[in-house]
Parts: sequence; C-alpha cells; structure tokens
Amino acid sequence: MSKHLPDLEQFRDLIGGAQRILMITHVAPDGDAIGSLLGLGWLLWSQDKDLTLACEDPVPDVYASLPGTERVVRGAEGAYDLIISLDCSDQRRMGQVYDESLASVPLVNIDHHVTNTLFGTLNWVDPTSVATAQIILDMVDLFGWQMNHAVATCLLTGLVTDTRSFRTSNVDVATVRAALRLMEAGASLSEITRQALEQRPLASVRLWGQAFGSLQLEDGILWTEVTRAMRRESGLHENGATGLANFLSGVREARVVVVFTERDDGTVDVGMRSVPGIDVAQAALRLGGGGHPQAAGCTFVGTLSQARKQVLVELRKTLAAQAAQDTERPAVPH
Amino acid sequence: MSKHLPDLEQFRDLIGGAQRILMITHVAPDGDAIGSLLGLGWLLWSQDKDLTLACEDPVPDVYASLPGTERVVRGAEGAYDLIISLDCSDQRRMGQVYDESLASVPLVNIDHHVTNTLFGTLNWVDPTSVATAQIILDMVDLFGWQMNHAVATCLLTGLVTDTRSFRTSNVDVATVRAALRLMEAGASLSEITRQALEQRPLASVRLWGQAFGSLQLEDGILWTEVTRAMRRESGLHENGATGLANFLSGVREARVVVVFTERDDGTVDVGMRSVPGIDVAQAALRLGGGGHPQAAGCTFVGTLSQARKQVLVELRKTLAAQAAQDTERPAVPH
Repeated sequence: MSKHLPDLEQFRDLIGGAQRILMITHVAPDGDAIGSLLGLGWLLWSQDKDLTLACEDPVPDVYASLPGTERVVRGAEGAYDLIISLDCSDQRRMGQVYDESLASVPLVNIDHHVTNTLFGTLNWVDPTSVATAQIILDMVDLFGWQMNHAVATCLLTGLVTDTRSFRTSNVDVATVRAALRLMEAGASLSEITRQALEQRPLASVRLWGQAFGSLQLEDGILWTEVTRAMRRESGLHENGATGLANFLSGVREARVVVVFTERDDGTVDVGMRSVPGIDVAQAALRLGGGGHPQAAGCTFVGTLSQARKQVLVELRKTLAAQAAQDTERPAVPH
Repeated sequence: MSKHLPDLEQFRDLIGGAQRILMITHVAPDGDAIGSLLGLGWLLWSQDKDLTLACEDPVPDVYASLPGTERVVRGAEGAYDLIISLDCSDQRRMGQVYDESLASVPLVNIDHHVTNTLFGTLNWVDPTSVATAQIILDMVDLFGWQMNHAVATCLLTGLVTDTRSFRTSNVDVATVRAALRLMEAGASLSEITRQALEQRPLASVRLWGQAFGSLQLEDGILWTEVTRAMRRESGLHENGATGLANFLSGVREARVVVVFTERDDGTVDVGMRSVPGIDVAQAALRLGGGGHPQAAGCTFVGTLSQARKQVLVELRKTLAAQAAQDTERPAVPH
C-alpha cells in the first residue's frame, strides 16, 4: 500500500469540531506509540481539547521521563465525540481500550504501517514515513500547529526509536531533516537515545548472552528462543527480550531473523526481521500479526516448539517466493 | 583542552604549497580514521596533489566498500614535502608509518581527541567536533573546497561511526546539520550504517554471548574479558570484540565499562567507556593510552590478570576523585 491521505479540509474539520477526544495507541507500546500519542496530545491540549490518552498496557519505564506520561490511562472514561488511533495497523491493536460501545464514534486512523487495514472513518496512513511521529510533524506543517519543547521531545522519541537512531533502511534526507527540526525546537537527541535505546539492565544483557548461546542458523534463517525459565532466572518481565531481534538483524549470514519469546499467558511473542528485499510483513499477516516489510511480528497461541515449527514454515515460503521472483526477473544487461 | 585552531592563512599556504603529501591515520583504524583519511584524500586529489594515504594496519573489511580504500597503503613511499596526520592523538598513533627519516618534514596534525599532544608543526585540534571527519567538513566550508559524492560518503562514515549513529552524548544540532549536508551531497546514511555499524558475523555474536556470560560488576565498574582461546574458538581476529565496550556502556548499573581483549602478541587491548561526568581519558592517559572522556583505551603489556588488576586500580582512583569532587560541590538549592 502506498500513501493514503484523507481530504485535509475534512480532517481539520473533524478534529476542529470535536471537543472530547479519546486517543488510543497500541498494546505493548513502543517509543513511536507513546511518542506520537503524547506528541499529538500536547498539540491538541494547546488547542484546549479535552483528551483521554489511553493504552491497554502501561507506559514502559524507558519512556516514563517523557512529558505527559503520567496522564496516559489504561482505558476509556465516559463519552467521546472523536477517537484517534495512533500507530495501530488494525483495530485489534487498540486492545481492550476500544470496545463495542465506541463503535458509533467517528475514528481517525493515523499510522505508518504498510499492513494498515484502513479501519478508520478517516485514514491518514503513510508507509513512506519512518514513524507515526513523522506524520504528526507533517500535520504541524500542514495545519500551522504550534510546536513546543514537549511536542518536539515526544515526536523525536518516536522517530529515533522506530529507526533505532537512524539505522533502518527507510531513513532518508527527509527523516534527518525532521530530526533536525525537532532538535532545533529543543528536543535532546542524546538524552532520548540514551534513555530509549542505549540503557538496559545488566540482567537483560545476561539474558541476551544466553539467547546468543542457542542461536540456530538454517537456510539464511537465524533464530533463537527466550524461555519463561530464562526470564524467571533473570528476573525480567515479558519485555526483557526487547531489541534482541533488532540486534540480531545485523548478523551478516542471516536473511531473516526470528526471536521467540515465551510469555506467561501461554502464548509466544514472535519478532521477525529481514534484510531489504525480503518482506516478513506478509508472513506475519498470515500468522495473524502485522508490521513492516523488514520488521514484523505476531502473537502465537501455543507452545514454543509449535510456534517455531509453524513460523519457520511460513518464513521458508517467503524465502522461496522471493527466490522464484528473483529467477523470473530478467538479468540487468551490463 | 579546548579548540586549538591554526592560523588559517598559514594552514592554507602550507597545504597549497605542498605537492607530495603523506597522509597518515592511526593504527587499528576505525571508521573515522579511514573516513577522514579518504575524505581529505578525495578533496586534495581534486586539487591535483600527489598523495600517499597510509595506515600501518589494513583497512578493516567493514570499510572496504568506501571509495578509494584500494589506494590506502601500509607505509611511506619516497620523499614528501608535507605530512598530514588524521585522528591521531599523539605521534605514536601513526605507528611505523612515521619514522625518524620523516622528522624534518612539516607535519599538520588534524584531530578531535581531547588528549591530543599537539605534536604537529601546525595543529588543528577540535574536541568539540564529534569526529575528525567533521573538522574536514569545516575545512570544506572555510576554504571553499569542492564537495562530491565520494567525499560525502567518507566523511559521513566518520561521523556515523564515531557517534555510533548519533548515540553519543556529544551529538548536537551541529552534528545532525553536518550529517544532513553530507546526505544532501549524496551519501547514503542507511547504507553506511548497515555496512559499518549493524553488520557483524555470527561468530562475533556468539563471542559476545560468551563475554556476557562472564560479566563482573563491582562498585559501578562493569568488566569482561575476551581471551585468546575464545577468539580462536570463534575463528575471529583481534578486532572480534569491536563494539562490545560500546554496547556494554548502555548497562544501567554501570558507571564505567572495561573490556579486556587478549591479543596474539602478548599485550592486552583495554577499551573503557563511562557515563557523562566520569572521565576515563585521564585513567587511559596514566596507563599510556588516550581517547575521549567517555571512550578511551590503552594497550597493556602483560597478562590479562595483570591488566585487570592495574586498570581497575586506576579506574577506582577516577571514581574516587569524582566522588570527592561531587562532595565538595555545594548542593543546588531547591
């Protein structure tokens, strides 16, 4: 899917006409989820909107220092005349915050995932943006909204975390220009980077060490597992393996990386990464998940070994399809 | 030490008047060493200078795709009327490329290390620059030199590697503005990042796993060792532990990080990192090395256990001195 922009006048009228707005970001929030939620929050607070900022899961510790996190709640509170979903590729990603009672309320869907299902009344979906935060920055320009220090800090957090500090393959001049603009508005890149990307507890590094010890490489697919026992021993919660798949995506011999993390509720969190040219978002979609071509995931209901078996089957299909496509493509003449 | 800039006219005359120039970067070259060597190389080649680009050690594989690496040699070749040293904090860092026979040739010392000994005939030393490559970019502006794709790619490599893609605490608006300018001149940030920072062989990840398994934390000092046996088993050369100290500097419980790597020649490579506020460059200097306040190192002649003992003593002194200083400083009133 390419860009899907709403009629701008209609969008502005919908936001302008609403007073009580419910803003929702996705379950298991990352830096772009929290950053774009709070960034747009600060922009709309300064327009005197009455906002509820909601996320089913608590704000992760690494983002706790962002301005406004204490105002993020776990569910809807009362009646609303508009809902804005942020960084959610489909309706389910809003979790339990969104339920039947809200079905009649108009919904604006703001997202940058290529797998977005366009589930909103209005959809602003731009997969050319590296982060939903970058789309919010576009809005600042288009509608002449007032930038301030809090907005800049929240949006730069989204930009930095979704690109792992400008390391992903979709980063271009526009990304760096956006970052520069947010820094000029007062956001501290080094502070954000240190808080959100660099810092990790020693226990998590020890856990990574164990995961590195059981790495498997087969047909270009590199995978490892984080079991409940490993997490328990390390004293870490479910997000202890955060960043592990990103890190492993740099392994030269791997075309696809998978990290299986056994969760306490009997499901398995599956994080996938791939080199440019291999699209793991499609495999994730077939497994009931979603994401980006080079970074996707799903939640598997079953045991670790069931997850491994089924996910590897899907990923082998992806690699085979890609190989077939590469063969069909005529060679470029010299 | 703060900025130490030469008389600009004198600098320009010295470069302008020289025809055969020997350019030297430091032993065990990193991305800024190779990037600034080649970046300035391309700038001076386009001014029809006759250059020798030299480094005692070979160009690491991760930088092999930079334009011009095939022209980097291991030593001086003949007579010169000027020497330019790049990214070397002292004369010894030029290794065996620089010997007595060159002592009478004028030397321009271009560097950004705070521990630079100002060993040149002319010294352009700017510790406010995040990389020597950033100083070369300043020269492009000051002297109106012609930027091109090759120059931009080499200089952005220096900027990106020395800041670990904008993650170090010295990154500011000027750094990002410099990066943007180099990208606008055609350098691909994502390509450089992938090549220089993200990609690592699987064997190196397995080695890190082992090093994570033997991490020790004491009084805020986190350290680990990479033994010759570990490297041999992994099939990696001496630079197999590159990046390990950087990675560990993110451990929340650590104020100082040390990685001891046993080398084949009976010495131990000591890489140190610290949180802002703790200056490890001074400890490195006392041990015969050098570097930046938050990233320094030395080569220790002796065994692993001797290195560990002596380095930890020096680092405890650093921490004690810092603690004393913190106590002396009057508390900020609320």
